[in-house]
Amino acid sequence: MSDTKQRIHRPQPVTGYPEWLPEVRLVEQRWLDRIRAVFESYGFCSIETPSVEEIEVLVAKGGDADKEIYALHRLQEDQRDNEPRVALHYDLTVPLARYVAMHYNDLVFPFKRYQIQRAWRGERPQEGRFREFCQCDIDVIDNEKVSLHFDAEIPAIIYEILQRLEVGAVGLHINNRKILEGFYRGIGITDVVSAIRIVDKLDKIGRDGVRRGLVESLGLPGEVADSCLALAEIRTPDGGFVDRVRALGVRSELLDQGLDELRFVFDELSHIPHGVIMADLSIARGFDYYTGTVYEGKLRDFPTYPSICSGGRYDNLVGAYLRKNLPGVGMSIGLTRIFAKLLKEGLIPPGPKCPTEVMVAFLPGHERAAAAAVAASLRQAGIRVEMYHEPKKVDAQMRYAARKGIPYVWFPAPSPGAPHEVKDMSSGQQAAADPATWRPGTSVASERVSG
Amino acid sequence: MSDTKQRIHRPQPVTGYPEWLPEVRLVEQRWLDRIRAVFESYGFCSIETPSVEEIEVLVAKGGDADKEIYALHRLQEDQRDNEPRVALHYDLTVPLARYVAMHYNDLVFPFKRYQIQRAWRGERPQEGRFREFCQCDIDVIDNEKVSLHFDAEIPAIIYEILQRLEVGAVGLHINNRKILEGFYRGIGITDVVSAIRIVDKLDKIGRDGVRRGLVESLGLPGEVADSCLALAEIRTPDGGFVDRVRALGVRSELLDQGLDELRFVFDELSHIPHGVIMADLSIARGFDYYTGTVYEGKLRDFPTYPSICSGGRYDNLVGAYLRKNLPGVGMSIGLTRIFAKLLKEGLIPPGPKCPTEVMVAFLPGHERAAAAAVAASLRQAGIRVEMYHEPKKVDAQMRYAARKGIPYVWFPAPSPGAPHEVKDMSSGQQAAADPATWRPGTSVASERVSG
Repeated sequence: MSDTKQRIHRPQPVTGYPEWLPEVRLVEQRWLDRIRAVFESYGFCSIETPSVEEIEVLVAKGGDADKEIYALHRLQEDQRDNEPRVALHYDLTVPLARYVAMHYNDLVFPFKRYQIQRAWRGERPQEGRFREFCQCDIDVIDNEKVSLHFDAEIPAIIYEILQRLEVGAVGLHINNRKILEGFYRGIGITDVVSAIRIVDKLDKIGRDGVRRGLVESLGLPGEVADSCLALAEIRTPDGGFVDRVRALGVRSELLDQGLDELRFVFDELSHIPHGVIMADLSIARGFDYYTGTVYEGKLRDFPTYPSICSGGRYDNLVGAYLRKNLPGVGMSIGLTRIFAKLLKEGLIPPGPKCPTEVMVAFLPGHERAAAAAVAASLRQAGIRVEMYHEPKKVDAQMRYAARKGIPYVWFPAPSPGAPHEVKDMSSGQQAAADPATWRPGTSVASERVSG
Repeated sequence: MSDTKQRIHRPQPVTGYPEWLPEVRLVEQRWLDRIRAVFESYGFCSIETPSVEEIEVLVAKGGDADKEIYALHRLQEDQRDNEPRVALHYDLTVPLARYVAMHYNDLVFPFKRYQIQRAWRGERPQEGRFREFCQCDIDVIDNEKVSLHFDAEIPAIIYEILQRLEVGAVGLHINNRKILEGFYRGIGITDVVSAIRIVDKLDKIGRDGVRRGLVESLGLPGEVADSCLALAEIRTPDGGFVDRVRALGVRSELLDQGLDELRFVFDELSHIPHGVIMADLSIARGFDYYTGTVYEGKLRDFPTYPSICSGGRYDNLVGAYLRKNLPGVGMSIGLTRIFAKLLKEGLIPPGPKCPTEVMVAFLPGHERAAAAAVAASLRQAGIRVEMYHEPKKVDAQMRYAARKGIPYVWFPAPSPGAPHEVKDMSSGQQAAADPATWRPGTSVASERVSG
């Protein structure tokens, strides 16, 4: 009764954790269904992993990412404190590696899986960056060797999905880490990993920033830094990158191998419209575990927006657990990132507020059981049906159906033998109908048959 | 190179966090599809909420549950420490209440939503109790009043789902908190909430434990405790509970109302086979927020296993945020709990290890492009197709298809104009086939047409 007791905590949206209204969620669900259908159409199986992994596993593979990890603790700690130290996963690749290592003997290789799950990162929220987001990953892991055909098939699958989602023009930028590493070694750089990390920031800090980083942090001669920049600036929509790299005059076996692999991938992707696939020698990817092909996808209409899909080939991520050679290659679609952007830009028309196709009205004085029988009969035929549960005035019931975007309202026969009627909410037409034969989409005659 | 560097952390399963092999996940996915289809066939819309809520929101509604809450903290805290204090949700009802309060003006009431998501509890793992689990909830929330028809429709929907999942015989036990509260007040108990909490433990601590709790902890006279026990022991598969409660000689308006409501729900559920729906006056539900109908479902074949679905009516959970009256009623299916039990009991036959219907072989010396064209053509027809990506010996390719349970293997024409062939892996028969017209399920003739 006191004021203190009545104090109301008005909940606020938690920044960085997106949440959609039903009419938007319905569209997101359609997206998820389409993504799943395409993944499965290429024979990838679904797995899910726990939301958490042991902290040791996450940190070992995370490179720079460890400060972004959310660990769990029980709000009220008690005696039972031999619980494992766990944290939410920040991607689906590290959990996949752990999964394959743990279930190695029960899996058939090449192991092709897709995984659609949430991931979490303790980032400062900003456009395109969320603390919780949904990722859609496909990866192939095999014993000893993963066919290079997968390096081409995977971006082709991702492109097919992006087309089906109608996200607008996209660019899939591809590089190969062996080109970077081979080139860097060829010009005398020893700390290749640090050099790659600096060049990877080209988008963010620009030419001058990268040059300064290479010269000042790594102590490289100016002309070596310039060579790195010259390589990073090569971007061709076809195999032209090979000659342009050759023209820089650097030679190394690893470089040759990288160029061959990237050209192979390009040749295999020749069925994709010109301009989508780009050899982009600035792409490096932040995670250390990539060893070959690397990918980054962009929305062409929003060039400053972060990449919408990414991935690459990793040779040592999985096998390390088992002292085996288990290379892999995969890509991840940043579903939340794409969806949130297109939604914000008004490019995603919301769906209806509910999946109902037919609402069965419940008019005052009518038999409830008759309405229930109609609903059951329509549902039996695979139609999505809801019953209005209170015998309110017909106006209130129609208003409800209209506000929820329900396409048909059914008026059960007021007495045994009298006809049922159905109203098409978009045309306003109402006509007699038989629950045993009527189906949504059937035209509703223009005249009311009875009142 | 040092030994320290090569030390391998061999990952272990994290206790309480279930994870399935692909062939089991495939069955779980079928379950999820069926659950979603039934929810939607009754017009419920999908929502998802973030995995986290503000701690204040969770604790306020959690009753006893707060010690089970997992809070998040960044592994490496830094300067940006004005992040909201959040924790993983332990159910989907509290997030729903917060969602409705936050989006009140954008929702149409009655708001009927389903929500299939993971939830987390810091429990000691044991049979049927997980730290991370998937729940499938439906709820209705309305302004001022939720029709009592929903109290019957919701368990009917849940029953339909359990039937479709073929989980075996189930019991849906129903009670009404008003019966408990009205009866308790009628026999002079003032601390009704504490009395309900004690009686709720009947299953765990037995008659004597409950009696002792009521007498010793609450200081109730022995005959009052006996009355509570007599009420809790009423269990009828029909409306017989009314007379049995009346026979105990207690009268109160609230008790009458509870009995009327429960009888109404029973009458509405008369189409469900006898013995499934039980009036069970021992059911109370742990959470404080229930105010009317309460539900608990059991697997009849595993009577000591915890409840597989539960829920109830709550009048004050949502509206409190808005100073409005927004009652609700809903139920939750403990998907992980049911699935894990039936799996353990060998009652869930695993599916195939992948969704592939046709594997296109890649034989040594053959044209890769021809195989790709076949795969694309079959996929165009809606068939799930994977390509074998390395020109290994045919034996290795067949073994792969057999181990993954792929029903058909396609051998592309070895040269233009030669016939394609398809092998039915279950019958072993192989015959010529045209990628433009062949479909899975087409019988494969018994004789090889060409070699």
